[in-house]
Amino acid sequence: MAPPLDARIKSGHDKRNQNNNQNLEELMERIGFIGLGAMGRPMARNLLRGTGAQMIVYDMNPDAVAALVAEGATAAGSIAEVAANADIIVTMLPDSPDVEAVVLGPGGLAESAGAEMLVMDMSTIDPSVTDLLSKALGERGHGFVDAPVGRTVTFAEQGKSLFMVGASSNDFGRVKPLLEAMGNTIHHCGAPGAGIRTKLVNNYIAIVMNQVNAEALALIQHFGLALQPTLDVVNGTTATNGHLVTNYPSKVLKGDLDPGFRVKLADKDLNLALDAARTADIPMFLGHAARECYGLARASGHAETDWTVLVDLACARAGLKPPRL
Amino acid sequence: MAPPLDARIKSGHDKRNQNNNQNLEELMERIGFIGLGAMGRPMARNLLRGTGAQMIVYDMNPDAVAALVAEGATAAGSIAEVAANADIIVTMLPDSPDVEAVVLGPGGLAESAGAEMLVMDMSTIDPSVTDLLSKALGERGHGFVDAPVGRTVTFAEQGKSLFMVGASSNDFGRVKPLLEAMGNTIHHCGAPGAGIRTKLVNNYIAIVMNQVNAEALALIQHFGLALQPTLDVVNGTTATNGHLVTNYPSKVLKGDLDPGFRVKLADKDLNLALDAARTADIPMFLGHAARECYGLARASGHAETDWTVLVDLACARAGLKPPRL
Amino acid sequence: MAPPLDARIKSGHDKRNQNNNQNLEELMERIGFIGLGAMGRPMARNLLRGTGAQMIVYDMNPDAVAALVAEGATAAGSIAEVAANADIIVTMLPDSPDVEAVVLGPGGLAESAGAEMLVMDMSTIDPSVTDLLSKALGERGHGFVDAPVGRTVTFAEQGKSLFMVGASSNDFGRVKPLLEAMGNTIHHCGAPGAGIRTKLVNNYIAIVMNQVNAEALALIQHFGLALQPTLDVVNGTTATNGHLVTNYPSKVLKGDLDPGFRVKLADKDLNLALDAARTADIPMFLGHAARECYGLARASGHAETDWTVLVDLACARAGLKPPRL
Amino acid sequence: MAPPLDARIKSGHDKRNQNNNQNLEELMERIGFIGLGAMGRPMARNLLRGTGAQMIVYDMNPDAVAALVAEGATAAGSIAEVAANADIIVTMLPDSPDVEAVVLGPGGLAESAGAEMLVMDMSTIDPSVTDLLSKALGERGHGFVDAPVGRTVTFAEQGKSLFMVGASSNDFGRVKPLLEAMGNTIHHCGAPGAGIRTKLVNNYIAIVMNQVNAEALALIQHFGLALQPTLDVVNGTTATNGHLVTNYPSKVLKGDLDPGFRVKLADKDLNLALDAARTADIPMFLGHAARECYGLARASGHAETDWTVLVDLACARAGLKPPRL
Repeated sequence: MAPPLDARIKSGHDKRNQNNNQNLEELMERIGFIGLGAMGRPMARNLLRGTGAQMIVYDMNPDAVAALVAEGATAAGSIAEVAANADIIVTMLPDSPDVEAVVLGPGGLAESAGAEMLVMDMSTIDPSVTDLLSKALGERGHGFVDAPVGRTVTFAEQGKSLFMVGASSNDFGRVKPLLEAMGNTIHHCGAPGAGIRTKLVNNYIAIVMNQVNAEALALIQHFGLALQPTLDVVNGTTATNGHLVTNYPSKVLKGDLDPGFRVKLADKDLNLALDAARTADIPMFLGHAARECYGLARASGHAETDWTVLVDLACARAGLKPPRL
Repeated sequence: MAPPLDARIKSGHDKRNQNNNQNLEELMERIGFIGLGAMGRPMARNLLRGTGAQMIVYDMNPDAVAALVAEGATAAGSIAEVAANADIIVTMLPDSPDVEAVVLGPGGLAESAGAEMLVMDMSTIDPSVTDLLSKALGERGHGFVDAPVGRTVTFAEQGKSLFMVGASSNDFGRVKPLLEAMGNTIHHCGAPGAGIRTKLVNNYIAIVMNQVNAEALALIQHFGLALQPTLDVVNGTTATNGHLVTNYPSKVLKGDLDPGFRVKLADKDLNLALDAARTADIPMFLGHAARECYGLARASGHAETDWTVLVDLACARAGLKPPRL
Repeated sequence: MAPPLDARIKSGHDKRNQNNNQNLEELMERIGFIGLGAMGRPMARNLLRGTGAQMIVYDMNPDAVAALVAEGATAAGSIAEVAANADIIVTMLPDSPDVEAVVLGPGGLAESAGAEMLVMDMSTIDPSVTDLLSKALGERGHGFVDAPVGRTVTFAEQGKSLFMVGASSNDFGRVKPLLEAMGNTIHHCGAPGAGIRTKLVNNYIAIVMNQVNAEALALIQHFGLALQPTLDVVNGTTATNGHLVTNYPSKVLKGDLDPGFRVKLADKDLNLALDAARTADIPMFLGHAARECYGLARASGHAETDWTVLVDLACARAGLKPPRL
Repeated sequence: MAPPLDARIKSGHDKRNQNNNQNLEELMERIGFIGLGAMGRPMARNLLRGTGAQMIVYDMNPDAVAALVAEGATAAGSIAEVAANADIIVTMLPDSPDVEAVVLGPGGLAESAGAEMLVMDMSTIDPSVTDLLSKALGERGHGFVDAPVGRTVTFAEQGKSLFMVGASSNDFGRVKPLLEAMGNTIHHCGAPGAGIRTKLVNNYIAIVMNQVNAEALALIQHFGLALQPTLDVVNGTTATNGHLVTNYPSKVLKGDLDPGFRVKLADKDLNLALDAARTADIPMFLGHAARECYGLARASGHAETDWTVLVDLACARAGLKPPRL
């Protein structure tokens, strides 16, 4: 059940004049959280702690549910129960069919919701499914926000995630306190659907660039150039990029391939971008060549390895030693 | 204005014990400069002005020579005459065969030089030719430095070039004052050959990344995302790169395609890197896919356009409007 | 003309003991045909004429239905009606979701069928959907055959199609007379699912090879080689292939780009093969590069053109005249 | 020295009325043969046996020379000696620089020849070098023919080579008897330069198609299709090609990877075609993707393996068993 109208109006009004500590007002909104996996769990915990809101959670893994219950959340026995007991419902699920089933499937949120439910999907999924959900919920009088996550689990645990949000102005106002409890960088990218699309573009660049750098590092190894001085040069020109500055020095170039972002997830995101491009006949020459490289990585047993392993694989393919700082 | 002659003579011996402000001392070294093209001309002028050294220049274009003579340089009638009247000779030529001919060909520098000539090649050429020149000159008792240029003509005109230098410690000390007169960022990358190789790696990343960004911008246009906010998101993640931060906002995204770095030169540098990779059987999947995109740009009449035109071409191919800030 | 009714009834039991000339006997099997598009229509007509069987047809286009009714078929008002009045049901539909909906969806064949229905899907679809259909029907006690078509509409009209069939031995025996009425080359490739997979492999080679040839023909034009003599050479070596021998000489090299096989259908089949390869992490470097070329063709307005247009596009991209015999 | 004019006229005349045993007439032309490697040796032997001509041979390997001398050839101590003692000189050398050095270098054929020398280069080289040789020799009054070889060493040993000939009509008449002694399929492709260009186009198709087939065979293995029936289907459609019909069944699909045509030579020929395309800005998407696959093969130790090994490598990359008949 939704909070009394006046309470919500009051909090909405105050929201625009305040920047921090909005927790008290937001307590009026009851939160549902569906999907307590590697990323969902720390997000749900930070959400619970940061907002102090009433929260009901659902996951097929009872241990994950129990952990949240221990912190004060209520366990839902079904998705319908989440729908009945929350005003804003966060979904954080593996892939497009999962989200579609939870929202629109039999026994799903749309079927069970009262009036004025707001669903915020934070999964990374096919944007055409995002559009479908947004439209279907809108037709039933519900709200929809897409707010995929832009940084790794480590950041999520520290409440330092980045979010790319597609939402109406009003809905953005409602979810902002929740997002502030889970992350520290929040981009309102446009209307519903703009969040997931911004994420796909962003990840496309990072995921393909990873292989560009890998090829360049193989060339560095072949040339026998000293690594740090060469990186110093590159980082002073147009060639500089996020991998070389922040990612590689703490991961592959240190020999640390513990997964921060797994090859298989990079591959998944890349394919979502390529599938979107396919529908519009946008040639993505480099994207497809990169996809083959991720495919090679998966096929050689590296699906669960950190994506920076592409550097070592590019070198190994040419019989070169992995580059290390 | 040059210092008095005795001052120049006196300072020669101190050279190796000082680190800065060596301009006065360096005047002892007579400079030769071969190749006064779009890039060579401003470099030679800054070199002349900045060092006050005695300088002899050679180019097949009499106008280019006259311009330098007007500033105090001497015109050489032949390459042999340069060799006979200079201690350090800079070459700044279009491609590998040009440099090889000037240095090792009939009537070239090697044939005509006295003792202890130091050749500094600043062209961007095939590193195997660099090695050949270095070896051939070394066997004749001469020195060799490769110091290709890392920024555009505009920077060269302002004396703000970046140089990637391959040189022995001793030779690096000799050319440093010259480089300081022409640029403001000097990287000593290693022994002879390390400069050109660092440049090829650096340009490889920037040139291929250009197409990665172009594909992503086509996706942005297709998705109908607002450009500046999307770039703001991207530049806060691993996906950020030099093009998006410094290059595109002043070029293609403003509709300015006046050549800062031409498609045909990017294509040339890319091919040098790919040729080097070929000899070592290093797979460069993205590099080759990118090469086809530069080939498409050349074939559609854009050889002389700024390399950021790849963004507009990627959009046009899918019937999308060019992205503009 | 159909045989007398008693002959049909009598022959039913002999079916499994005979190999040839089973047409008379097969008339016992009532046929359903769903999907009367460009390919389905001539197939259904030949099936009706060639077997003399009782046939019930369904399509959303009333004109297509009327044309078959005029030849003796019965019109079904729903898919359920087809299920209720046929023993073997042929589906010939645009894409995977269409077939899945017709077979397994609400009001679909599985829901409405009596005992021992045999579904023969002749569409080109995702093999994982083929497997799904086969399994789901099997669990309900029905049979399933996949028999995609290997030649163009022109061949279908002449009853000269090629079929790649995945079926149990028993089911193959049942559908063989039907296939013989529609085509003249029938390959039993293996168990259910083997037909569609064989087709995907076959089309993969032909579709990608099309672009290989296109690039080679651009080279021929650039070299200024005489076309026929060059093809004569190529067709005498390992380089020979079906396009050069039979397809191009009657299509693109004659300037005939009327669609025998459309770019968009080639693109669809290529993507099905690539999607199948993706699930198994099989690198398909050339397939993906080819897909971009089909994407370029679609994006430039050639989705409905004959696939051999890739030859002209490859030449045009390099400013070369199209090759013509 | 050339044979007396009347003898040459006479033999030329007879040639057109005879098909075989033209040996007696051809004896008038003295033959030189430079390059007795794996391919050159059997060609020279067949030439000697088949024409009965006076023949002088040159190679840096004394064993190769001795073998020919044992059959009746004369050993030359230098290239100049070949030039002085032959009317038609065949060159069969590894690469462009070798041929250029032998023909135009110091002590080379052009320098040492008398009047009316005819050089027939049968090597596979860069067509721009072919043009250079043709032009340089023409300016000195000599003739030039390019006649690269289109089949493997095994065919050469049996005198069953295929030749692609670029020659003036007159020169073609002169070299035809020689070619008939070495092969059984002779294509006169056009003026000088047309032979090597036809070969590059031909080999481009075969070399790239090899990887197309390899990817398709990996898909066959993944799908678990029976090999022979699947090949039977493919060979009945547009997808059929020379590899599948004649090459693979006797090589890789039998597990025989003894080099008939080595990966490194396929790679060389592919690069010659790609380099020629580069100069004309012809996009060769599949060619470049294929080149990376040959690069991967070389890098993994297969430079000297038969080129059909690409099939096994494509399967191995995806963890699939090699396909065998």
